[in-house]
Amino acid sequence: MPVQLSAPVPAQLYPIAGVRLGVTEAGIRKAKRKDLSLVLLDPGTSVAGVFTQNRFCAAPVQICREHLAGADGVRALLINTGNANAGTGADGRARALSTCAALAHKLGLKVQQILPFSTGVIMEPLPNDRIEAGLDAALADARADNWLRLSEAIMTTDTVAKAFGVQLEIGGCQVSVTGVSKGAGMIRPNMATMLGFIATDACVSPAIMQALALALAEGSFNRVTVDGDTSTNDSLLVIASNRAGHAQIDSLDNADGQALLAAMLGVAQKLAQAIVRDGEGATKFITVAVEGGRTRAECRLVAYAIAHSPLVKTAFFASDPNLGRILAAVGYAGIEDLEQSGIDLYLDDVHVATQGGRHPLYREEHGQRVMQQSEITVRVLLGRGAAADRVWTCDLSHDYVTINADYRS
Amino acid sequence: MPVQLSAPVPAQLYPIAGVRLGVTEAGIRKAKRKDLSLVLLDPGTSVAGVFTQNRFCAAPVQICREHLAGADGVRALLINTGNANAGTGADGRARALSTCAALAHKLGLKVQQILPFSTGVIMEPLPNDRIEAGLDAALADARADNWLRLSEAIMTTDTVAKAFGVQLEIGGCQVSVTGVSKGAGMIRPNMATMLGFIATDACVSPAIMQALALALAEGSFNRVTVDGDTSTNDSLLVIASNRAGHAQIDSLDNADGQALLAAMLGVAQKLAQAIVRDGEGATKFITVAVEGGRTRAECRLVAYAIAHSPLVKTAFFASDPNLGRILAAVGYAGIEDLEQSGIDLYLDDVHVATQGGRHPLYREEHGQRVMQQSEITVRVLLGRGAAADRVWTCDLSHDYVTINADYRS
Repeated sequence: MPVQLSAPVPAQLYPIAGVRLGVTEAGIRKAKRKDLSLVLLDPGTSVAGVFTQNRFCAAPVQICREHLAGADGVRALLINTGNANAGTGADGRARALSTCAALAHKLGLKVQQILPFSTGVIMEPLPNDRIEAGLDAALADARADNWLRLSEAIMTTDTVAKAFGVQLEIGGCQVSVTGVSKGAGMIRPNMATMLGFIATDACVSPAIMQALALALAEGSFNRVTVDGDTSTNDSLLVIASNRAGHAQIDSLDNADGQALLAAMLGVAQKLAQAIVRDGEGATKFITVAVEGGRTRAECRLVAYAIAHSPLVKTAFFASDPNLGRILAAVGYAGIEDLEQSGIDLYLDDVHVATQGGRHPLYREEHGQRVMQQSEITVRVLLGRGAAADRVWTCDLSHDYVTINADYRS
Repeated sequence: MPVQLSAPVPAQLYPIAGVRLGVTEAGIRKAKRKDLSLVLLDPGTSVAGVFTQNRFCAAPVQICREHLAGADGVRALLINTGNANAGTGADGRARALSTCAALAHKLGLKVQQILPFSTGVIMEPLPNDRIEAGLDAALADARADNWLRLSEAIMTTDTVAKAFGVQLEIGGCQVSVTGVSKGAGMIRPNMATMLGFIATDACVSPAIMQALALALAEGSFNRVTVDGDTSTNDSLLVIASNRAGHAQIDSLDNADGQALLAAMLGVAQKLAQAIVRDGEGATKFITVAVEGGRTRAECRLVAYAIAHSPLVKTAFFASDPNLGRILAAVGYAGIEDLEQSGIDLYLDDVHVATQGGRHPLYREEHGQRVMQQSEITVRVLLGRGAAADRVWTCDLSHDYVTINADYRS
């Protein structure tokens, strides 16, 4: 039940020179389902990744971190759905490495040049034999204009594929950016979304790739939450194939760096917001903006308390302006010296509460009008400082319970 | 849908000498509903309270704190349902004080000798006129054997009344303990439950009353959670009427102090667990025990991460042993240096995971068997130290969404 997601994806997804994508049905968990994907990178491509902060991070996340830290250039991504290979101990690690080795052998690469990504059920053994058996078909499928198929092949409980692209000009050269993501539940990315891949043909100094990836994650995937559950497998990979022809960008602070960052951030935010709009059971898309804090961190604390409150989320589902629940969440967010007399609350343009109490001009029908919308902004003014931050979330509906009570059945 | 709550309450609720209770229908929010209660205390009664840590604490909580800090002995509690008088600013405070003043006038007391308690909808003006108009009827109803009626009169979304009693002997004298509580949603008490009142006729030094109240809250109400929402109105009041005749207890560490604490803690735990068993939409009662931590605080961090995870809670609702969700919650609980290879997970007697991966002897049907039960213990061994703690919670069902989407309608 995605909230105002243009169906199914934008027509225009730009091929990225130097990047080819192949997809197949490997029968990893269910038959007749695209569940195995390869992203093949030409020599000279730069990559950087941001991964889950969950201490129970999956085997593929551990391996990605190690391979990215090595000196060998990454040349291929190996992505499966149906099995997260998390909570699988040393055996899970061995199985993930086995799939990387099989692909490396076929491509004449070192195992360290392959990055594995998995998503699906936790604590089940990875069927690495099926993945290895599917590699030839995925390789045969590889081509540059396969982004839509990739976005479909990484879906799990997603109801729509998520892919966006944009073009810009840098130094007189046309630059393309294309990204895909997946995720609908177990979403409180902390340093990335469940799976996100954003590629550009821009020429980017390897020295700033990690900063670019971090900036993209912080401004997009790290600001969305569906249910507060940080996944074991969250991964965002940023790819620059360095083929656009302009002078290499060596800083995110100059004009070219800013232009590229803005373009890529636009794609990243659309991908991140698409995850919330496709949130399990979501019927409403909520922006929680908190202003007037002493620090951005305390603004985020308040925003997440509101975004995670089951009572707030069910009130949005019911279109019920039971807005005291928002004030309660502000109160328990964890700011020790918060003064309730300094708090103001808005729902879109409606001034609901002032100085910690109901606004004298507020009427239930004003709140009711906004609550009927499918997109709503909650704005909290803390009255303590000049910092601000925001997160994007969705409501909590019967369908969330249905989806998560039935997911494995 | 309470989970194995003996219906409706134990037959034996002991009157407490020096404590009388009166109840009436004041029409605060709905007609024909017991919604106004008084607890009248004889001179010489000691009281102590523990209150919500929510910074948006309600007006009655603020007033309770001030009146308890004063030198005048508390002589009456004034309790209403239907309206929480929270998020109501200076006007809410004036209305609460007006009800206290009205009762003080009728009883010939100072306003500081009255403690107000409110529960219900947030951010609506307290109808203090209706409360004041109902005082005479509540006073006329006051008697010592009214605990069952009190437990009924403080219910909101509760489906069963919650009241327990116990008797013990101290210094050759019979001592009685009787308590009531209410609460079913917006339950993550932090320093007390929504409303809990526990009275004894034991003789207790006023100097240790606050320590007694804190010990009771820490061992009971502060270890339960339904939805992680810390209420604006959480209050636990402990009453000792000093009428049992034994020598005054002046320490919780000697034999008499330990005996009284154990008896009262037994009542407090039953009351706290009854709130979880009656949790909104609850179909299962879950004990989350975390052992092998470096500190109790980090054990609680993990226990609450599990107890609040919507994915874990929906898996319990579905009786689906999707136990990787529990490992994921352990991983994001916030222990920075947690090593997943040290983690073991049990579901009752079933050893599910060891050294961070699936236990080699674990089979899905073993987990399935336990998941079918209505009472389940999740046990996590962190393998880092000797500390342990536990919390009690319930599952997340369709009925939770229904109840909270429809609460005000």
